[in-house]
Amino acid sequence: MQLFTFWRSIATFRVRAALNLKGLSVQPTFIDLLAGDQHKPEFMGLNPMAAIPVFVDDDGTTLLQSLPILEYLEERYPQTPLMPKDFAGRARVRALAQMTIADSHPLTVPRVRNYLSSMGASPEVINAWATHWLTLGAEAYEKRLSGDKATGTYCHGDQLSIADICLAGHVIAMNLFGAKADAYPTVARIAALVMSDERVASAHPLRQPGAPAPKA
Amino acid sequence: MQLFTFWRSIATFRVRAALNLKGLSVQPTFIDLLAGDQHKPEFMGLNPMAAIPVFVDDDGTTLLQSLPILEYLEERYPQTPLMPKDFAGRARVRALAQMTIADSHPLTVPRVRNYLSSMGASPEVINAWATHWLTLGAEAYEKRLSGDKATGTYCHGDQLSIADICLAGHVIAMNLFGAKADAYPTVARIAALVMSDERVASAHPLRQPGAPAPKA
Repeated sequence: MQLFTFWRSIATFRVRAALNLKGLSVQPTFIDLLAGDQHKPEFMGLNPMAAIPVFVDDDGTTLLQSLPILEYLEERYPQTPLMPKDFAGRARVRALAQMTIADSHPLTVPRVRNYLSSMGASPEVINAWATHWLTLGAEAYEKRLSGDKATGTYCHGDQLSIADICLAGHVIAMNLFGAKADAYPTVARIAALVMSDERVASAHPLRQPGAPAPKA
Repeated sequence: MQLFTFWRSIATFRVRAALNLKGLSVQPTFIDLLAGDQHKPEFMGLNPMAAIPVFVDDDGTTLLQSLPILEYLEERYPQTPLMPKDFAGRARVRALAQMTIADSHPLTVPRVRNYLSSMGASPEVINAWATHWLTLGAEAYEKRLSGDKATGTYCHGDQLSIADICLAGHVIAMNLFGAKADAYPTVARIAALVMSDERVASAHPLRQPGAPAPKA
């Protein structure tokens, strides 16, 4: 198994966490997004959209996009289930995942920040843009999770699921932009619980090769 | 079954199309997004994120977010399958769906356009913003679909899938912003084929109650 990865990519964090939880080890290939490695012909041949994660299974099956990769891992490698079994529960977990994957994170990725810059936005305005959407996402998560009986120790009952990996990634993204989720108690509680699992913690962006050293 | 819907919502188009394809009829409740119905307390109680679609199954199961609703319909009502059976195929269909659901469409929704307006962007700049991301999405679809042996009559082989519904919605969104997909032959071909199915065509935004009359 092979994973094209980069320390800062939140989408790739989700896949690293799921692989660790399922006890699957991959050969990492590092794509330096800040240096533009994703635009090199050899990578573009694999993914013409110049994005990671890209996951290659042992039989050569090549997959793009974090949530489809998580769903594939769940179907193909059912150990340590990351999805409930009932239809409604699965739909709820998927909807919680989409709150960051579709509603928040895509507004903060490099190509959007670069486009805002080309429109004349300053670095401060661009950082405010990213934290605005991520904070709005955390607020939406809080509203959705608190007071819903289906929420348990984790986002959905007492079993760690794809929704928790996505929520943890959302909070990590906030932190990388200098924002905090402390104002959202359910979000902060679940994210802390998820990150207390070493299998998820070791997938953290700042623990990957190439990440900047922690500030003294 | 109940569907909270609005003519212009592309996410709700996806659900309308899937329901039609599966022969399921729903009671529509119209939420006028332009008039702000989504912020009224009775709707916010259902979805604190003030967004549609919201789908309520006969047993009261209440679901949010278009892709999770499509996956639920596929699991719960397997007639007229909209997903392949093999793991790799399912992952490919899901990744194609995410190209618009996560990578393109979220950049163009009303709350983002309103925020750009609050930053001082003119209506022309905002329209250019939306068409930029949708056109980039169409270009990415074209690269991904053309020259991939897994692409057939439809996005994935010769069976209409969730990916096709999403692709058709992407082209409809382009059209609503005054852009065209003609420069992307595989995209344009598949979208036209999908829309030639009356079950999908009748889900088109401009054929819903409340939509503006076609220009003479």
